[in-house]
Amino acid sequence: MARPSNSRFFSAHGDIPRGAFAKVTDSDIAHFRSVCSGVLTDADEVAPFNSDWLNKYHGHSSVVLRPKTTQEVSDILKYCNDRRLAVVPQGGNTGLVGGSVPVHDEVILSTGNMNVIESFDDVSGIVVCQSGYMMPLDLGAKGTCQIGGNASTNAGGLRLLRYGSLHGSILGIEAVLADGTIVDCLSTMRKDNTGYDLKQLFIGSEGTLGVITKLSVLTPPRPASINVALVGCNSFDAVQKTYVAARRHLGEILSAVEFMDRASLDMVLRSQSTLVDPLETACPFYVLLETAGSRADHDMDKLDAYLAHVLESGDVVDGTVAQDAHQARKLFGIREDITLALSATGYVYKYDVSVPMDAYYTIVEDTRNHLKAFDDVQVVGYGHLGDGNMHLNISTPTYNSQVMAAIEPFVFEWTAARRGSISAEHGIGTHKPAFLHLSKAKNAINMMHQMKALYDPRGILNPYKVLPNVHQD
Amino acid sequence: MARPSNSRFFSAHGDIPRGAFAKVTDSDIAHFRSVCSGVLTDADEVAPFNSDWLNKYHGHSSVVLRPKTTQEVSDILKYCNDRRLAVVPQGGNTGLVGGSVPVHDEVILSTGNMNVIESFDDVSGIVVCQSGYMMPLDLGAKGTCQIGGNASTNAGGLRLLRYGSLHGSILGIEAVLADGTIVDCLSTMRKDNTGYDLKQLFIGSEGTLGVITKLSVLTPPRPASINVALVGCNSFDAVQKTYVAARRHLGEILSAVEFMDRASLDMVLRSQSTLVDPLETACPFYVLLETAGSRADHDMDKLDAYLAHVLESGDVVDGTVAQDAHQARKLFGIREDITLALSATGYVYKYDVSVPMDAYYTIVEDTRNHLKAFDDVQVVGYGHLGDGNMHLNISTPTYNSQVMAAIEPFVFEWTAARRGSISAEHGIGTHKPAFLHLSKAKNAINMMHQMKALYDPRGILNPYKVLPNVHQD
Repeated sequence: MARPSNSRFFSAHGDIPRGAFAKVTDSDIAHFRSVCSGVLTDADEVAPFNSDWLNKYHGHSSVVLRPKTTQEVSDILKYCNDRRLAVVPQGGNTGLVGGSVPVHDEVILSTGNMNVIESFDDVSGIVVCQSGYMMPLDLGAKGTCQIGGNASTNAGGLRLLRYGSLHGSILGIEAVLADGTIVDCLSTMRKDNTGYDLKQLFIGSEGTLGVITKLSVLTPPRPASINVALVGCNSFDAVQKTYVAARRHLGEILSAVEFMDRASLDMVLRSQSTLVDPLETACPFYVLLETAGSRADHDMDKLDAYLAHVLESGDVVDGTVAQDAHQARKLFGIREDITLALSATGYVYKYDVSVPMDAYYTIVEDTRNHLKAFDDVQVVGYGHLGDGNMHLNISTPTYNSQVMAAIEPFVFEWTAARRGSISAEHGIGTHKPAFLHLSKAKNAINMMHQMKALYDPRGILNPYKVLPNVHQD
Repeated sequence: MARPSNSRFFSAHGDIPRGAFAKVTDSDIAHFRSVCSGVLTDADEVAPFNSDWLNKYHGHSSVVLRPKTTQEVSDILKYCNDRRLAVVPQGGNTGLVGGSVPVHDEVILSTGNMNVIESFDDVSGIVVCQSGYMMPLDLGAKGTCQIGGNASTNAGGLRLLRYGSLHGSILGIEAVLADGTIVDCLSTMRKDNTGYDLKQLFIGSEGTLGVITKLSVLTPPRPASINVALVGCNSFDAVQKTYVAARRHLGEILSAVEFMDRASLDMVLRSQSTLVDPLETACPFYVLLETAGSRADHDMDKLDAYLAHVLESGDVVDGTVAQDAHQARKLFGIREDITLALSATGYVYKYDVSVPMDAYYTIVEDTRNHLKAFDDVQVVGYGHLGDGNMHLNISTPTYNSQVMAAIEPFVFEWTAARRGSISAEHGIGTHKPAFLHLSKAKNAINMMHQMKALYDPRGILNPYKVLPNVHQD
C-alpha cells in the first residue's frame, strides 16, 4: 500500500512517559543473534517497523527480531523478561490505533517469518498455521495483515456478518507468555470443552498477555457463487428498511452489508480520476450488499426478488448489480478505497464505534454539527452496517489540536451515552486507554489489570497499550 | 423428563474428600432468608437438586437458594465467601458430568428464578435476558436446560455446525465473582473490541470462576423452510462421503449432520413399541441431515439434487425425507431419544469425544473389541458428525466396576493418542479432572490454576469440579 506522506512531525501516540525498562545494549543484540534467526539493526531496515502504514504513530526502536519458530519466540521473551526489556509484537502492522507500533524503544518482535502452514484438512476446512500468515477473512488490510495480528486484535472486517467473530472461528492457539512459557492450546477440534478456554485470552488482548505463535482456524468453504449489488437510499430510515429486507430475502446467502454516505463516495471519486459515479442518481446514502452461496441460479433468484421488493417499496431509488467478478471487485473497491482517499485529504481522526442501529448515522450528523464552527473539516461515515459498526472519520488539511480537542472526548462520550462501544473492531492501542472506562465497567477494568499482573508481572509485553494508567516505574 | 430409577446406591462423583469448608448453620439459613427471595430447606424440596436427571451423581446439600436478581446473587456469594461456605451453581441440571450436582454439602445456588427477558431487538436479533432462561440453540436437553448453564458449560448441541459455538454468539455476560463483585460485560453490540474479552472466561468454565446472572445473545432468524432427511450407509467410508457431499450440495442451508449406528437405532426401537424402523433397508450407519433456509423451493431443489447424487454414487443405500414438520420432528426424535433408550438398558458409561473424522467410528469398534470379554455389555456410537463429535456410550445391566476399569482410562488415552478432545461438549465436572492432562497441556493447566486462584482465592465456587487435584484443606 502507498504510504501517505503527511504529518511526519506528529506521533498520535501522544505524550506517554517511558516506563522503567532496560535499554537495549550491544550485548543484548549479540544475545538476540544467538537465539533468533532474523535480527535487524540497520536504521533503514528498522524504520518501516517504527511506523504504522498511515504514518500516524511513530516509535524509536533500534532492533527488529524476526523469529521463525515458537522456540525462538520463547527464548527471546524469556531473555527480555529477565532483562526487563519491553517488547512490541508486530504482525502486518495494519492497525489503526497504534497497537503494533513502538511508543519508545521497545524491541519489535515481528511475526513476518512465522509463515508455515502446518496442515489443512479438506473435509473439515480446518487449517493449522504459524501466526505470520494471511487470514481467510476479508479485511481492507488483506494482503498485508497477518493472521497472528488478526487474532490478537480480534479483527472484524467485511464478512463478520456471515462468519462470525474470531472468538468463534479460531479453534486453537499456541502462544508464548512474557516469561517464555509456551502454552499449547492448539486444538484442531471444532468442539473441545476441556477446562478454561484459554485461547480466548489471546484473542483481542492486542499482544499484552502473550505472543501468538500458531493458530488453527475453521475456514468456510469458498462459495460457488458471489453477487454484489450497490443501492442508493434517500434517508437513513430507508437504509434500515433496506437492511431488514436483505436479512429476510437473502437470509443464509447474505455475506456482507456495507454502508457509505455520499461524502465518502465523493472522496473516493475525487481521489481516482478514472472512476465514475456507480449510480445515475446521486443519493445521500449507499448500501453495498454481497451474497455468497452454493447455487448461482438460486442466489440470483433471491437477489432479483429482493431488489424488486426494495425498488417497489421506494426504499431504494437506484441500484446496480455487478455482472461479473471484475465489476464486483470494482464495486467493493469503492468501499475499500475510502480509507486511502481519506488519507489523501490530510490528517484523519479515525473513530470506530458500535452503536444501536437507530443511532448508526446520527453520530455522523451530530459530529458534523458539533464541528461546524471549524473551516476545512470534513466528516464522513461508512462501515459495516450489518454489524452496527460505524467508521466515523474526520479530516483536516493538517493536524489541528483544536479540532482534536473538540472531537475527543465528544465522540467517545456520545457513544457511551448510548451504551455503544468506543472500539468496535480497531482495538484500544495507545489511542483509547484513557477512554476505556466509557465502554468497560470499573470492575471489568480491575479484572483486566489483575490478569495482566498475573501473566505479565514485569509488564514487558506491549507496554502503554490497552490498559489505562499503568505506567511502569 | 422421566428419571430412570437404577443405580440409586452409587454416586458417579467417586470418592472425593470434602474440602475444609464451613458447614451451613441455622444462622446461615436465617441470613440467606434475609438476602434471598427463595430459600428451600425442606428435605423433599431440596432432594431433586441433589441429583442429576440421570440419577447418577448425588450430593448431600441441605439448602437451595433461588435468587431473582443479580444483587441477591452478589449478596449470597459475598456472604458464602466470607464464611467460606462452598457453592454449586445450578441451571437446568441437565449436565452429564456431575458439574451442577453437589459433591458434599455445598450450598446450591439455583438460577431457575432468574427468568426475565430484558430486551429483544428485532432488527439485529439480539436478546438480553437473565440466566435462568431457555436458549435459542438446539440441545437434547431443551425444555429443561437454562441459558446460564448452557453458557457456563459452553453447550454445543445439534446446530453448532451452522451457528457456531457460544464463544461466538454470546455477545455479553454479567457475572458475579466469588467475593460478590458484580462484573458487567453485558455488551449488546455485535462488535466490541474494548480490552480483554472477559466474558469468555465464564463461558465453559462450569461455574468455577463466577456465576452468570445475565447474558446477551445473538439469535439467528427463524428459518422459513426446514427439511429433514435420514439416509443409510453400508460403510463408514460412505458416511464420510455422504457428509462431504452434503457440505458441497447443501452449503449454506445445511443446519445439522447427525450420526447414529444401527445399535443406537435398535435401542430406540426396542424402547418404543409404537416406533417402526424409519427405513426399509437395515444399514449399519445412519446420517440425519437437516436444512434450514429462507426459500422452500430452493431448499428442496438443493436437497433433491443432493439425494440424487448420493444415491447414484451408491454411498447411500436407502433414505427418507420428512414430508411435513410432524415427520421431521419424528425423525429427529429418534436421534434425540437415544439417551433415554440407553438409560432404560441399565447403567450407562457416557463418553463424549472429538476425534479426527477418519477415527470417528473407529473408537466405537475398538471399544467394542476391547470389552468383548465381558457379557452383557452394549457399545453404541452416535453424535454430531459435522462437528467430529462422537458420543460413545457403553451400558451394562447394573454398574460394573470391572467394566469401568476396562473403559477408563482406555477411552481417554485412545482419544488423546489421536490429539482428540476427551470432552467435546459435556465438560469436565467431577468425571474428568483426573484425565484433563490427556487433552490439555501442562502449562495450560497451570494457567487454569493461576486463574482460579486469582478470581476465587478461597475456592468456594463449584469445588471439586474441572480443576485436577485441587482439594481444599
